[in-house]
Amino acid sequence: MKEHIKGYAYGEAGLEHSPVTKQDLELLKKTLLWSDDDNRFLKMAGDVLQDQTDAVLDLWYNYVGSNEHLVYYFGENGKPNEHYLSAVRVRFKQWILDLCHRPYDQAWLDYQHEIAKRHHSTKKNQTDQVQAVPIVHFRYIVAFIYPITVTIKDFLKKKGHSQEDVEGMYNAWFKAVTLTALLWCHPFVHQGEF
Amino acid sequence: MKEHIKGYAYGEAGLEHSPVTKQDLELLKKTLLWSDDDNRFLKMAGDVLQDQTDAVLDLWYNYVGSNEHLVYYFGENGKPNEHYLSAVRVRFKQWILDLCHRPYDQAWLDYQHEIAKRHHSTKKNQTDQVQAVPIVHFRYIVAFIYPITVTIKDFLKKKGHSQEDVEGMYNAWFKAVTLTALLWCHPFVHQGEF
Repeated sequence: MKEHIKGYAYGEAGLEHSPVTKQDLELLKKTLLWSDDDNRFLKMAGDVLQDQTDAVLDLWYNYVGSNEHLVYYFGENGKPNEHYLSAVRVRFKQWILDLCHRPYDQAWLDYQHEIAKRHHSTKKNQTDQVQAVPIVHFRYIVAFIYPITVTIKDFLKKKGHSQEDVEGMYNAWFKAVTLTALLWCHPFVHQGEF
Repeated sequence: MKEHIKGYAYGEAGLEHSPVTKQDLELLKKTLLWSDDDNRFLKMAGDVLQDQTDAVLDLWYNYVGSNEHLVYYFGENGKPNEHYLSAVRVRFKQWILDLCHRPYDQAWLDYQHEIAKRHHSTKKNQTDQVQAVPIVHFRYIVAFIYPITVTIKDFLKKKGHSQEDVEGMYNAWFKAVTLTALLWCHPFVHQGEF
């Protein structure tokens, strides 16, 4: 049974349209050397990760929690907000599956834009009605491409796939993480420069 | 004998100070899970790549050249500027070695900032005195993390290193590319949001 996810507005009609067009998206995928194999490997990765998302989030939250300069973004006055951390965690879990299983269509683009705004002062803290610092700084959104990519590999290995399949899933995941990270940067970038 | 590299202003006193502090840099490296091993592996990668930089650039330029939406940034009115492409190529080769061999100190930060401005309308086209489109769009700077990372692996394998060393060099390279890409984004980001 699917748990209710607060703020999970995927596909909702009220979401703002992404400023990134589907044509932009196609060119970005081309830049990322995206192929049909990546679609296949991402789906495979989603199946592999489906029942491991709690373990993945444990690892990621342990990483964030052990870095004062990162957990900073989840609170104010040096105190992390546990309610905020928990609410984000549930959506972050779902993001893993959406990254792997959803088609990258208009609804997907629109929800990436919603996530982008939730990192930026445009909308940070509003979804969870929390008091916390007003923005996640840009530099960490891009830097996160590394840890969010490399830490997934051990989880991709856990279901007995060949090394070739693991590498295929890993590379597709790397592309997908890079793509979403850059989409999440849109609100931070000067108009016309994205 | 070292060839003269036009616009290679590394370490020059006249360069603007990077707006990113050494303390910011340390926290970014922490975010990237940077360790002493990465320093060692990057140096090893530099030694491995030293005499392969032309082959690496052949691959990268073939990739850019076969993507109209990328070669676009090297010209105007749909015509790539060969002089511009050549001048950038020589600096790009040197960047590979600097990424691996240079200490990440103030001079390194300052030159990353110079490179950043050369991608942005702040300073694009000036170094090579060319007529070309006025900016490289932000999205491709981040997207490039993927191709610039994955394409290096085959070159890292060419000198008979163990699989463990190749993986070590590859991960350190991935971190270093992510770090420089995000530093190159500084001019594109709203003040106070970087």
